[in-house]
Amino acid sequence: MATRSTIMDTNSFRPEMAAALDPQTRRLTEEREVLGPAYRLFYRKPVHLTKGRGARVWDADGEEYLDVYNNVASVGHANPRVVDAIARQAGLLNTHTRYLHENVLDYAQDILSTMPGELDRVMFQCTGSEANDLAVRVARAYTGGEGVIVTAEAYHGNSALTSGLSPALGTAQELGLTMRMIPTPDTYRLEIDGCPGNACPAAEFGAWMAGEVRRAVADMERHGIRFAALLADSIFSSDGVYPDPAGYLGPVIDTVHELGGVWIADEVQPGFTRTGDAFWGFQRQGIVPDLVTSGKPMANGLPTSLMAARHEVLEPFAGSIPYFNTFGGNPVCMAAAQATLDVMRDEDTMGNAKRVGTVFRRAVEGLMADHPCIGDVRGAGLYIGCEIVVPGTKEPDQATALDILETLRMHHVLTSVCGRFGNILKLRPPLVFSEEDVDMFMDAMAVTLRELGL
Amino acid sequence: MATRSTIMDTNSFRPEMAAALDPQTRRLTEEREVLGPAYRLFYRKPVHLTKGRGARVWDADGEEYLDVYNNVASVGHANPRVVDAIARQAGLLNTHTRYLHENVLDYAQDILSTMPGELDRVMFQCTGSEANDLAVRVARAYTGGEGVIVTAEAYHGNSALTSGLSPALGTAQELGLTMRMIPTPDTYRLEIDGCPGNACPAAEFGAWMAGEVRRAVADMERHGIRFAALLADSIFSSDGVYPDPAGYLGPVIDTVHELGGVWIADEVQPGFTRTGDAFWGFQRQGIVPDLVTSGKPMANGLPTSLMAARHEVLEPFAGSIPYFNTFGGNPVCMAAAQATLDVMRDEDTMGNAKRVGTVFRRAVEGLMADHPCIGDVRGAGLYIGCEIVVPGTKEPDQATALDILETLRMHHVLTSVCGRFGNILKLRPPLVFSEEDVDMFMDAMAVTLRELGL
Repeated sequence: MATRSTIMDTNSFRPEMAAALDPQTRRLTEEREVLGPAYRLFYRKPVHLTKGRGARVWDADGEEYLDVYNNVASVGHANPRVVDAIARQAGLLNTHTRYLHENVLDYAQDILSTMPGELDRVMFQCTGSEANDLAVRVARAYTGGEGVIVTAEAYHGNSALTSGLSPALGTAQELGLTMRMIPTPDTYRLEIDGCPGNACPAAEFGAWMAGEVRRAVADMERHGIRFAALLADSIFSSDGVYPDPAGYLGPVIDTVHELGGVWIADEVQPGFTRTGDAFWGFQRQGIVPDLVTSGKPMANGLPTSLMAARHEVLEPFAGSIPYFNTFGGNPVCMAAAQATLDVMRDEDTMGNAKRVGTVFRRAVEGLMADHPCIGDVRGAGLYIGCEIVVPGTKEPDQATALDILETLRMHHVLTSVCGRFGNILKLRPPLVFSEEDVDMFMDAMAVTLRELGL
Repeated sequence: MATRSTIMDTNSFRPEMAAALDPQTRRLTEEREVLGPAYRLFYRKPVHLTKGRGARVWDADGEEYLDVYNNVASVGHANPRVVDAIARQAGLLNTHTRYLHENVLDYAQDILSTMPGELDRVMFQCTGSEANDLAVRVARAYTGGEGVIVTAEAYHGNSALTSGLSPALGTAQELGLTMRMIPTPDTYRLEIDGCPGNACPAAEFGAWMAGEVRRAVADMERHGIRFAALLADSIFSSDGVYPDPAGYLGPVIDTVHELGGVWIADEVQPGFTRTGDAFWGFQRQGIVPDLVTSGKPMANGLPTSLMAARHEVLEPFAGSIPYFNTFGGNPVCMAAAQATLDVMRDEDTMGNAKRVGTVFRRAVEGLMADHPCIGDVRGAGLYIGCEIVVPGTKEPDQATALDILETLRMHHVLTSVCGRFGNILKLRPPLVFSEEDVDMFMDAMAVTLRELGL
């Protein structure tokens, strides 16, 4: 089972595919040379989007697509309430947090009201990377340690610090000297004492993972590194989507605390009602983290992120080290975040994620009987992972997964892949996804599987 | 001459001042507890801003203020063209750079057209910190070195990496192990071979600074650290505003290159027509950097930043390490950046910065004769530093500088201070500052100096 050098290259256009493109698309891909070689386009035939509404987007030719991938437009593309809030506040004033402004305070109170009472402080940044970068520094100041544990296929950001905590970036990216990895909690392939992971009781699966944390911390100590934090997202999205058995993180956080570390919950993926079971992913697991970070879904597309904290964990850093983020918490971003949160409540995106997510997952599961290339379907709410394997085995089949997503794209359905083998279809639509949208996906999937002879 | 632990605490509200506040302001300051102890408010009596237009802002009581400090609202608070561009694009679509979109390509071409041809690649992030964090990684990949040189009072960002390159954050923030500092190019106090710095020819002052770079690199080598980059802003804003003698950076960049390093021009402060002499600060100095970063003034308040590069410098990093910034270069931020750039051209903010900046600086210089507490006035365009000293000496007088800015605030003029002694009035208004605004400032300054008996 070969791994790929980086998850970012799994679903991507390459210049040698240019000949197959129409002239306008080809021109635009060529013009991207100015952005340098780090930029990647999705798909062999890139999509040129110009308009969006809800879970639908349109390309430059007016063709409609179903968006089953973008969690940034959490309350729907071009949500009018969010657009209005941005326009109204931008037309009034946009400054920073060294002047008093109600927006940042009102939003701070409101977002903390969605969390357990222990999490009583919140700071604002612009990206999830900035939030995680700050959270690690806060954890280090509090614990006096340096060592950070992440899972084997985690992605936590693009800053120097967080890139070094992101094995998903591939082998060209050096990992931090004081970080350690624990295995992906792969409930599909792992066996715990002879029991398949996905049939394991939460306590037992958690005990396995807690043991991996102990092993990692022991190795840190052997190298003179003091343990500071476990940084993880509770749905393990980059690793391949492993939300269940819900509750398995309980024994892990207990172990982290026993060993003197803190838990940083990276909620960029599972937070903001995504799982359908709770506002935050960690609530679904029944744990209370020491630090919480989020970004993408928070302001429906404006660069806005947060780090929430227990006040006693925040104090050693924030009480001595100055931290000012010019754009973080500005009135316009806070207006967008507030409108996004209001829509989540008023339109009950949590209920929608639960209801439509369940319909969606069952529908995809229903394909397994006739399509043995689908080895496992798992997820929570509107976050679904669908394993594409060599039929009759658990062997990852990345080539087929890529064929499926490219064919879905030709049928105007946008998805992507994740996981260490790049073989897991990642289905993560805007939270306003409807049953009608599920039907459209299933129709496209049926045609796709038929066309590919799967 | 005592230094303060951090520049961020120089001009700031402290809780013990709360008793003097009106009930509403007091309530808002108390509510900020939820943001934790890192957040700072300007002024003993914080300002609660609710509206802005051009270089004027209004507080919650409808009182008008002259903004002589905020460079984020570069083309004026709530600039209608920028607001319209944001609202229009947000109402259409906001996605990321893995789909094709014209906004990012058009803006990339346009912003590179303002730079020398050697700078032919540009990547987009959300904050100046992210841009500098990335630029240092690019420089390291290109040079194979680790060592970064900054000036003694520099500020380059709030990420783990860039905080360690920001001595302005004070002694509680640990500096990076592989960084070295060179002295502030303090043309007011330094003497070069018996010649006062501000009377020194550019070549001679540059030779002094180049010598400091050599010394720093020699020290790196003594510790087994290979030199990677000099990271500096060409107006040395955090150090205290030292733009002249223009041209002095020529010998410095030659030395940096000779020693195998690259020059990262941090243009967050001097870029985007601020100096009135050129679009970018480095152009005013007649140098062509290897990497350019900017943020604050770029999109008039939306979190948007850039890193421009020579393609051969970018290649080793971007050709091998994946870098994706979810919000960076998104259609809405690019629309805001494009509108900001359009306004800069159409309203000739460069010409305005030159013309009004010259009037402004001469007016402030005119105060020196009768007010010996003003020891030096310097700057370029709409960036002016005004040294407050013990009369008859060059001894910094931070207490008086703070009295001046607090009194100016009571007379509805917003400024702040900078420099290693926190005694330099920093005058850095939106680029649409007018001669009428200069008059308003001078009136308030006259009253302030009289009231303080200076």
